[in-house]
Amino acid sequence: MTAMKVATFKCGGRDGTLLVVSEDLALAVAVPEIAPTLQSALDRWADCEGPLGDVYAALNAGVRTDAFPFRPEEAHSPLPRAYQWSEGSVWIVHLERCRRSTNRDLPQSLYTEVGMYQGGSDSFVGPRDPMRCPDDALDPDLEAGICVIVDDVPMGTSAEDAAAHIKLVMLVNDFSLRAIQPAEMAKGLGVLQCKPANAYSPVAASPTALGNCWRESMLTQPVEVTVRGERIGNPRGDRDALFGFPQLIAHLARTRDVVAGSIIGAGTVANRDPEAGSACLMERRAVEILDEGCARTPYLRFGDAIRIEARDAEGRSLFGAIEQTLQRSAGVPNVHL
Amino acid sequence: MTAMKVATFKCGGRDGTLLVVSEDLALAVAVPEIAPTLQSALDRWADCEGPLGDVYAALNAGVRTDAFPFRPEEAHSPLPRAYQWSEGSVWIVHLERCRRSTNRDLPQSLYTEVGMYQGGSDSFVGPRDPMRCPDDALDPDLEAGICVIVDDVPMGTSAEDAAAHIKLVMLVNDFSLRAIQPAEMAKGLGVLQCKPANAYSPVAASPTALGNCWRESMLTQPVEVTVRGERIGNPRGDRDALFGFPQLIAHLARTRDVVAGSIIGAGTVANRDPEAGSACLMERRAVEILDEGCARTPYLRFGDAIRIEARDAEGRSLFGAIEQTLQRSAGVPNVHL
Repeated sequence: MTAMKVATFKCGGRDGTLLVVSEDLALAVAVPEIAPTLQSALDRWADCEGPLGDVYAALNAGVRTDAFPFRPEEAHSPLPRAYQWSEGSVWIVHLERCRRSTNRDLPQSLYTEVGMYQGGSDSFVGPRDPMRCPDDALDPDLEAGICVIVDDVPMGTSAEDAAAHIKLVMLVNDFSLRAIQPAEMAKGLGVLQCKPANAYSPVAASPTALGNCWRESMLTQPVEVTVRGERIGNPRGDRDALFGFPQLIAHLARTRDVVAGSIIGAGTVANRDPEAGSACLMERRAVEILDEGCARTPYLRFGDAIRIEARDAEGRSLFGAIEQTLQRSAGVPNVHL
Repeated sequence: MTAMKVATFKCGGRDGTLLVVSEDLALAVAVPEIAPTLQSALDRWADCEGPLGDVYAALNAGVRTDAFPFRPEEAHSPLPRAYQWSEGSVWIVHLERCRRSTNRDLPQSLYTEVGMYQGGSDSFVGPRDPMRCPDDALDPDLEAGICVIVDDVPMGTSAEDAAAHIKLVMLVNDFSLRAIQPAEMAKGLGVLQCKPANAYSPVAASPTALGNCWRESMLTQPVEVTVRGERIGNPRGDRDALFGFPQLIAHLARTRDVVAGSIIGAGTVANRDPEAGSACLMERRAVEILDEGCARTPYLRFGDAIRIEARDAEGRSLFGAIEQTLQRSAGVPNVHL
């Protein structure tokens, strides 16, 4: 496996321009000679992985004279659009708290089988772009999570074989509208309107580039979640997970090929330890209801800010921070042509 | 609006090569000077629509000397992979029959609000490629439907404005695995494993190219569905639909931008008239259960063939036929590099 960090610059069309980013996220360089976009690199990963790793090593060694400062404000999500976003829910304590606080059943099958939904992937927003929705009475909420990008995974791939298909790791803000979620789920068809466009961390890192921060196919560092300037949680992915990414990938690939560039999430990170807090407002409100009888923390309102980041043991940002504010949608599509 | 029919030839990479096809589906021509792939044309639709229409007119006039015979066997689905496949269910009689026969509730909200799920779009199969799954004990089933491809639809677009975003129309085989569908839906997260890769008709046609066969944003001709050589249904899209494509598009765009190349389906076509038959085996079996007490027609077994086609009043194929057989998956991904 090759060490690399990559990002996507907001220019050059809908899919942006692929950048290789240095380990400390300070420097970047475009690599049109390898691939114009991240999706095109994933489409030919076996050919591109080595050359991208070479550029990463050269960047870190300070020998790329064409390097420029990496500015997360100018980054799109590493994949500005993707052919797939599917998300499991492996930190079951998140679902337990949310369902218990609203007296809804949690299907027992979710303890023994992967639960996973197909999400929208045609239109992501950048890590510093606003979360947009028509009305904040829809109770907008962040959901901080960890996700992976895979190469081609053939139908029937086992969990044992699936780990090798994890090529990149990112953080995600799986933006949700809580006011319409229960009625939508009651239709039995999953979630759609209650899941607007996600944003991802400015940088995606290969498992190897994460070093000790990635073990047994999972991030070992806390996901730090801040809302309106207040830290609401810092749960760890490697605690209290019922399933891992390899099992999620195998679940998805059971009855279909999963194509390169698919993004697979593991759900809202949550730990049983109350000290870990919450990675979304719905869960925080659920804890308030269970502990105190009623929810105190409001959902997001227009103008509210959120921040999601993970750092290594020395405090260095691994993927850069997702920093978004909530804005009313203006009827103008978020497409960078 | 411009008249055109387009298809995708299985060569030139994962997204294939865009072809313009003549009205009678006899001739085709590649148009690299306009766009290499259908997605790239949809990404710049305002620039590409006119030139594609000009090629279509020239093909039909017999003045393109570089035209070659169009062979559906060599066609992929018009979009071999897409950024979005979302499907509503507007022919409620389909759901009524299927739920009633299995004593499951049909949520009343589906009569007054669009029900829609997010489906997989990273990996479609060609119109003449096999339906693949690991085991036919999963009760594989076809679902014949009508779908549209849109250009960029901004968040908040009304149903009134949505019709103009319909750029192309196709047929779809929304392949399903019935044995695992109820347990998956019971998890409350929608459908995933029970929905393997779809196939689409060899040709996508613009609404204008369909003439009288497209009225009020709906196909007016029967969708002819054949299984194991037997015609099982020929329901019409313009009968018994609770909602139309503009409403489906507006539903999807309520809380997010819908990006060019998104495919939106309307569900399994079904009419109240029993003479129209069924467009999937589950519904046919439901009718048998309701009429005769038990299901006679088996689900698909390895080797079984299906066919889906729509023709104009003179019997000419509008989109070409989806013709697939069921095959055991062999662990080799269906990617054309």
